Parts: sequence; C-alpha cells; structure tokens
Amino acid sequence: MSFFASRWVESPGHVRELAPTTLPEGFRAAGTVCGIKPSGGLDVGLLVSDTPGSASAARFTRSGVQAAPVLVCRERCRLDAMRVVAVNSGNANAATGRAGLDAALRMQDAAAAAAGVDAELVAVASTGVIGVALDGAVVSRGLTSAATALRADGGGEFAEAIRTTDAFSKLAALEVELPGGRVRLCAQAKGAGMIQPGLATLLCFVETDAVLEASTADLLLGVTCARSFERISVDGQLSTNDTVLLLASGASGVTVEPESDGELRLGEALDALLRQLALLVVKDGEGATRVGRIEIRGGHLEAVERVARAVANSPLVKAALHGGDPNWGRIAQAVGMALPGTAPLQFDIEIGGIAVCREGTAVSYDAGALAAAVAGEEVDYLVELPGAGVAESECFFSDLSHDYVTINSEYTT
Amino acid sequence: MSFFASRWVESPGHVRELAPTTLPEGFRAAGTVCGIKPSGGLDVGLLVSDTPGSASAARFTRSGVQAAPVLVCRERCRLDAMRVVAVNSGNANAATGRAGLDAALRMQDAAAAAAGVDAELVAVASTGVIGVALDGAVVSRGLTSAATALRADGGGEFAEAIRTTDAFSKLAALEVELPGGRVRLCAQAKGAGMIQPGLATLLCFVETDAVLEASTADLLLGVTCARSFERISVDGQLSTNDTVLLLASGASGVTVEPESDGELRLGEALDALLRQLALLVVKDGEGATRVGRIEIRGGHLEAVERVARAVANSPLVKAALHGGDPNWGRIAQAVGMALPGTAPLQFDIEIGGIAVCREGTAVSYDAGALAAAVAGEEVDYLVELPGAGVAESECFFSDLSHDYVTINSEYTT
Repeated sequence: MSFFASRWVESPGHVRELAPTTLPEGFRAAGTVCGIKPSGGLDVGLLVSDTPGSASAARFTRSGVQAAPVLVCRERCRLDAMRVVAVNSGNANAATGRAGLDAALRMQDAAAAAAGVDAELVAVASTGVIGVALDGAVVSRGLTSAATALRADGGGEFAEAIRTTDAFSKLAALEVELPGGRVRLCAQAKGAGMIQPGLATLLCFVETDAVLEASTADLLLGVTCARSFERISVDGQLSTNDTVLLLASGASGVTVEPESDGELRLGEALDALLRQLALLVVKDGEGATRVGRIEIRGGHLEAVERVARAVANSPLVKAALHGGDPNWGRIAQAVGMALPGTAPLQFDIEIGGIAVCREGTAVSYDAGALAAAVAGEEVDYLVELPGAGVAESECFFSDLSHDYVTINSEYTT
Repeated sequence: MSFFASRWVESPGHVRELAPTTLPEGFRAAGTVCGIKPSGGLDVGLLVSDTPGSASAARFTRSGVQAAPVLVCRERCRLDAMRVVAVNSGNANAATGRAGLDAALRMQDAAAAAAGVDAELVAVASTGVIGVALDGAVVSRGLTSAATALRADGGGEFAEAIRTTDAFSKLAALEVELPGGRVRLCAQAKGAGMIQPGLATLLCFVETDAVLEASTADLLLGVTCARSFERISVDGQLSTNDTVLLLASGASGVTVEPESDGELRLGEALDALLRQLALLVVKDGEGATRVGRIEIRGGHLEAVERVARAVANSPLVKAALHGGDPNWGRIAQAVGMALPGTAPLQFDIEIGGIAVCREGTAVSYDAGALAAAVAGEEVDYLVELPGAGVAESECFFSDLSHDYVTINSEYTT
C-alpha cells in the first residue's frame, strides 16, 4: 500500500517510494534502550549526517512553557547547520528548571562526542511526561551506545525510539526526481496527543541528501509546515516540546537552487510527505477511529482561520464524527463561537458534498446519503462564509472516542 | 441538605432557603407537554409576572450564530420591562432562518395573548437540537395550555420543562432579609453541555418581588453573571441560545434603591444563587463526576483570564481530573499555550494547597497527599503567574468522562 493513503494527499508524479527505513545518502541513525520507558522499549534515538557543511532549518512550539531541549536548541544550536539529532522519549524534560537544562546540555555534549562534531551542531529533543526530572547521565549513556549502532537504514529504530502513545511508527522514504538528478527525502515523526493546529507535531525529523542552502531549507520547511503540522487537531492542546527539523547532507551532489524548478519539485515532495505524516498523526490521535477535514471558504483570512480551528477543536464536532452522527448544528455552533458579534450570519454548510445549511438556515437533504457521507474513515466538511472575502483555510481532526478518555484519564500517561 | 452545597459558595447570613418550587410574590409558572420531546416529557414552560410595571434585565450569548428566540428578544422585546417568559425545550430553533423567526414570534404572540400583556413584554427562549424546524403552532398551543395551569408554586414544573440533557432540575427559592423588609429571590436554570466560560448557561430565569429599577436589575445581573455563568466550562463550547433573564415584579413593596445597603445585600444573595446554579451546571456537565476550580493569580487581567479558560477548557486537564490523576504537567502545558512568546515562564502550581511546581520547575511533594487532594468531588488548582500584576481569575470545570463521549456521539442529541 502506498504511503500516500489519504484521499487528501496526492503523490507527486516525480516521487517514488523507497523502503520506509531508508535514509538519504550521508545519514545514519539508530534507536536504543536507556531505560526511561517502563515498557523497556526503545527510548533514545540518534541521527547523524556524516557530511560536513550540512544545511538545516527548524521550527519549534510557540508555547510560553518550553521544554529544556527546545530552549537548548534555540540558544545553543546553529539551527542553520545542524548535523546531529539526539532524542529521548518517555520524558519531556519540560517544567524541569535548571536541572532540566543541564540534562539537555549533557545530551547535546554526549551526542557531539559520539558523533565527533561540535555541540552547537547537535539538536536535542524530548517527548513524554511533563514535570519529571530527566536523568541526563542515563540518556547520555544511551546516546553513546546508539552511536555504535548507527546504520544507513536505521530510520526504523530511530522512528520507534521517538514514540510515546503512538500506536504505530510514522516514517517514509522517498526518491525525488529533480532536473539535476535524484535525491532522497525521508522523515520520521511522532505524535498522537496534545495536538493542536499550531505546529501540532510533537516531533518530526526530515532528512535529504540534496545540496541546499540553509535559507532554502528554511523556506521549504516553513511553507510545508503551514500546510501540514499547523493544520491538524487531536485535542487542541499545544505542546511544550514541538520540534520539526530539516537536515540536508548534500551527499547526493544534486544542487537545489533558490527559485528553481528543482526547488519547486522538492517542495512538492516535501509538502506531500509532511501532509501525509500530519494525517497519520491525526489518524493515530489518541483513541481516534476517523479523520475529518474542515474546509472554510470566503471571508477574510483571520475569520477562516478562526472558524477552521474552532470546528477542528470542538469536542462536540469530534464526538459527532466518532458516532457517525451528521449533527451539523454543532458545526454551526462552532462557527458562531468563532465569529462573535456577526449575527445573523449567512453561512453555508456541506458534509461530503451534501448541502445541509444555506444562508444560515437548515435545508432538506437525503438523510441516507448524509449518513453514508459521515460513515467513512475520512469525512469532508465545508463551511462557506458570506461576504466578498476569498480566503480559504482547512484543518484535519480526529474524532473524540471513549479510548481518548481512557488513555488520558489513567494515572499519568 | 442546603442548596449551597459547594464549598466554593457561601450562603449569605441574611438568606433563608424556601421550598425550591416557590416563586416570589406576583409570579406564577407552569410546565406542560406539547410533544416536541420524543420522551413525552414537559417541553413548554410559561412564567408570568402579574404585576404591571415590572422591571427586568437580560444577557444573551455572544455567538455569531444566534437562535431565533434570541434575535426576537433582542429586537422585539422591552428588555427592561419583561413580564412573561415563554420557553420550549427539545428544539433550539437555531439555524432555522425566516421560518424560525416566525415560529419564535408566534410563541411570543401566543404567550402575550394567554397572559394578557403586550407582545413586547414577552421574552422567548428555546433549547435543544440545532438546525431542525420548530413548529410554532404546536408550541403556541402548549403555551395556551400552560396558561391555564399557572401556579404560584409552579417553579418545579417550569424548571422541568426547560431541561434537555440535564440529569436533574436546577432551581432554588430564597428569602432575603433586606433593610426595608423581606423579599424573595428564585431561579430556574438548565444546562449540561455546550458550556463554555462566556455566559455558559443555556437558560436561566431569575425572579424577585423586590421593587427594582431596571438599571439596578441590569447592574446586579451583569455583576453576578460575571462571577457565575461566565466562569464555567463543561466542553468549552459557546451556545447559540444562552439566555439569562431577571424579572422583578415589585409585589413585595420592598424597594431596593441604587447604591443602598439593600442593593448590596440583594446582590450578595443573587451572587450566591447564580454561583451555586452555575456550579450545578458544571456538576451536571454531560458525563461529569467531579468539579475542578482553577484559580489564577498575578500577571495582568487578560493573561489571567486566558490562562483560566485554557486550563478549564483543556480536555487533557479534564481527563486527568476524571481519573483522579495529579498530572500537573497538563496544567503547565495549558498555561504555556495561553501565553505564547513568554518562555521561560516562572509560574507556580498548587493542587489542593500542595505545591507541585515553583518558578516553572517541578518540586518534590507527598504523592499520597496529592493523590488524596485530587480524589474528592471538588478539586482546587492554583496557578500563580510571575511579575508585578495582581489580577485574579477563576473558572469551574467538569471532568471529561466516557459518558460525555457516549452522550455526544449518539445519533443527534
């Protein structure tokens, strides 16, 4: 089965799928056990670009409460030239104060020593429970051990090592045909809860062997994050640890110039890759059984963004999606909540292409067809706002199930 | 048992509880069946002040999508002199367009005729499913029938007739000792889902036989709503139908002058009444088993309000409350989400008086004492923000349970 399984993502014609554990030329990765996870599962990951002169780009959570590794990346890292990523799962190293910063710095130093690069070229990331001290020595030993296990096809263990409540690993490897030759584009992501439409990812690491300037990497990552990890909701909760990194080893020798056809084609591939990964995060949303897409058209940009997020984050809309209930009144309610002071608002709603509300008023529809439209694994919702605006927005969201409650009400997950 | 059952509400010393179905002098009420509810339960309510010259005040939802009865109240009603309230449950008459407005106007006319007052003195309200046509003729017949059943102790049937997913009726009757004599203060409310900290009530009707100017009624209602229905969250979803009305018949002959001791004492009684009713809405939140109170201190007013709402609306915090899980990392996460761009933020968190986080950093605590603190029916959370600000805010919120999902994922509730 193709990695591009969602009907909302098109596989670009110039992209070929490789075995998902593959890494681009010049990269090696590994996952190992240091003992943070009570399950004894892989909980330390190391990713290394062996090529000097790598370019990179990064995006982080906008939360006012940022985990120690995020602060260390921002303050102690050459974000345009990263060559190593050191990660642990099972502990977010957030709200851990000075000791947490020390642990993150220790991870950075251990990975730098193991990979033989300067510490400022090493990004660190953590994911797991918030507010518990992280033993930097334990993770550092894990990183040193991981360094001896680095493999060119180690993407699988690396992806496994960054999982927390994820039900499945999220990774892909693509070969991209560019005018100058073939490059690889690979990514490993994790995320299932604490996901809201603001870099909702927790962690995602992208590698390519294309020769990129750091400014090109930054541009491509920004544009594609805005269409992927910025557009998904599991529970509308912004994380303290969100980190998305793009590392380019340049090992393919294929140069992607700014504003070139090659840049456009690499961007298309990255866009499809991150959108599908973002959809996998939603599909794997804690307890999720279905995925909805809310599309908003019309009005001005701020309005469509607010409405899209209000619908995608609504527990009532999510619960209705869970039950296959075409209760569009809850969409109308979310629209109204997002746009106070606009009543009476003349909006249209369609579900799976079936009109249920026109100019703010219920219209008759085929109940059987509507029930079928909300019964699938992927359900489309459309809201059109009145007025002269032509802005558009979209969000993807999971349903709210009994399992979400079970997962999140059990003692400290 | 006292109506004032929450530890967060103090019963004022000058207030005596009456049988809850009691109404103030000059009021009569009834509930009847018109057939909207499939259950065959009471679904039409009528409340009448028999005294000419009543004063009144109103508050409505701020949603951009407003139900027809809300629009009719705002545009066709003397909101300072209402004498009659006509309500139906089982259908919200929202997103129903021109036909919905006609149905609401027909309700207003029918109640006016039955009570013998001008239509502009009649408030209308609806609650139930959104986006389904309401048969105004059916409700009007119900109102005509209710008019023949009006009773001075009809508060019970009236409260019953406004229920939807409420597990229990919410009503109280108080006798308030004022310097000028005794007055009664009574209220009937409904609400369980679609509750967010913005006039989160769905419906609440308050009656008194004090002699009030409309401006005094408006002042008292505004101040007390801000401390009650504006401060509760079940699911963070603003309704299309929220309506809070205060009607003063003046039948006691006891005048409450502006800025008098009497006004203060009546205000204290109304404050306690509405706060306890708001807490009953949270306690009866769909699927709820516990109630949390988040208090925020420090920082400026906008910051404390945003943080209080972010914590109260967080499904992760709600699920942790459900499971009796002292996972305060989710509170830290919600604080950070509410205050982007402030990292590293030096906040403190206490649960049930036990410090778990100081200056943004985990501190050690007695796990057994903390587990006991989150095991009760009412759980206290405190966040102190850094800086020179002295603002305070609070919100009350229900937990997120399997039953919430069940209630809201079943076919169109």
